[in-house]
Amino acid sequence: MKIKRSPRLVDMTQYLLSHPHRLVSLTFFVSRYESAKSSISEDLTILKEQFELSGFGRIETVAGAAGGVIYIPTMSEEDAVVEVENLIHQLESADDRILPGGYFYLTDLLSDPEQLRKIGKIIASYYAESKATAIMTIATKGVPIAQMVALYMNIPFVIVRRDSKVTEGSTVSINYATKGTSRVEKMELTKSSLPQGSHVLIIDDFLNGGGTITGMNSMLKEFNSTCAGISVLCESDTPDREIDFDYQSLIKVQKDASFDKGFQLTLGTMFK
Amino acid sequence: MKIKRSPRLVDMTQYLLSHPHRLVSLTFFVSRYESAKSSISEDLTILKEQFELSGFGRIETVAGAAGGVIYIPTMSEEDAVVEVENLIHQLESADDRILPGGYFYLTDLLSDPEQLRKIGKIIASYYAESKATAIMTIATKGVPIAQMVALYMNIPFVIVRRDSKVTEGSTVSINYATKGTSRVEKMELTKSSLPQGSHVLIIDDFLNGGGTITGMNSMLKEFNSTCAGISVLCESDTPDREIDFDYQSLIKVQKDASFDKGFQLTLGTMFK
Repeated sequence: MKIKRSPRLVDMTQYLLSHPHRLVSLTFFVSRYESAKSSISEDLTILKEQFELSGFGRIETVAGAAGGVIYIPTMSEEDAVVEVENLIHQLESADDRILPGGYFYLTDLLSDPEQLRKIGKIIASYYAESKATAIMTIATKGVPIAQMVALYMNIPFVIVRRDSKVTEGSTVSINYATKGTSRVEKMELTKSSLPQGSHVLIIDDFLNGGGTITGMNSMLKEFNSTCAGISVLCESDTPDREIDFDYQSLIKVQKDASFDKGFQLTLGTMFK
Repeated sequence: MKIKRSPRLVDMTQYLLSHPHRLVSLTFFVSRYESAKSSISEDLTILKEQFELSGFGRIETVAGAAGGVIYIPTMSEEDAVVEVENLIHQLESADDRILPGGYFYLTDLLSDPEQLRKIGKIIASYYAESKATAIMTIATKGVPIAQMVALYMNIPFVIVRRDSKVTEGSTVSINYATKGTSRVEKMELTKSSLPQGSHVLIIDDFLNGGGTITGMNSMLKEFNSTCAGISVLCESDTPDREIDFDYQSLIKVQKDASFDKGFQLTLGTMFK
């Protein structure tokens, strides 16, 4: 389809947005639009500038015969702080966030596509250079966040499960201790779902004692894989947490009856 | 930010793609780009034409003072058939799809962002006019599909669970019979997660006997909600299925030892 600049820009914008972290060759665009290489280069200059101005992320140029462009979704720290402050505001505006047992209710946020897009983009942006080849999370509440990060990073996501009802072939299972209660629990991952030697970004919705994430870290070793980073949407304010991993949280939750609604939210470690 | 046509088209494309099924007023764009209404109208004419040509979907114009444009992601049936045939080809090219107990392995597909985008868009396109206000699925394997459809339809998704370990406030639980085995199982949904009077699109990864979907249908009644449609990625070829609901499948799976790899895949009911 030989088309002019304006419609070409519309199509290229969509193409790059839906193929993040993929090298797209100039010749691909040349043949897609039946246009000269020089025209495509000019298009890309416009796209590059506007992608940065609009805050979509950056378009990197890879030189050489096998060269092309790669769209990397990013968000400036300034914009990320504004978005997380909006999330905090939304969380604070609802009553009944604190559930029996001290659990913090997040499900409304994790089922809202517009909020998930923002959370996913913030985390994907932070780990854009991590060279992660896969994302790992644990069922069920980590899944929506992990899936959004996977969309922006364009890598697969695998789901560790606590039960073994789901029948999907042979699994690797490990035991892990939940911090606080010191119960020993089991988690498992389907063998075929994660290739050996993966570099894995671990994602979860909430960090309490750290037992679940310690478990996922152990799981990585069973797959001869390495950890590219650990990120959670929220962490509890637990000064004496005994963990042996680094992580980045978007929001810190302090629970205390002295606060207005029983809790106070502040920016997490990602913004320190 | 006062900007020229080319960069404006780049920004508008991204804005509409990431806000599907939302009315965006012309005055919003006028103030976003500090441009005349006539220029924005011309931009939208270009976008409208190219969105259809590129197969992103359609941009509808809503006239009047409160008017604007709405981007509806759609895929032509022709394109959808090509995409599903590609999915079938990918599924057929792997060995070991048939697991012990006759389960059909789909997890690799459901963890791949590029495949999920296509599946999500095909289903969202089919139900674009359904006026659904929410999506319902059951943990865990339906979640990735439901979330993608939710992104394209821009409505929240809720997750019904089979266990009750997850602590997120009061729940409504129902019993349902699994077809075939005739076991009675329990499923539950957090009360606050689905508003009364919702119009709900039910999504799952696989339709076997239909017990799970019958259960989700019963769950809808508990929330005084109605069903906007039912869609599954795959269905087993079960001629004597006793169900009282309509559904659309993308792929039909026939399992039989006489086939090359123990199964044969054909286009589902969505394309009949």
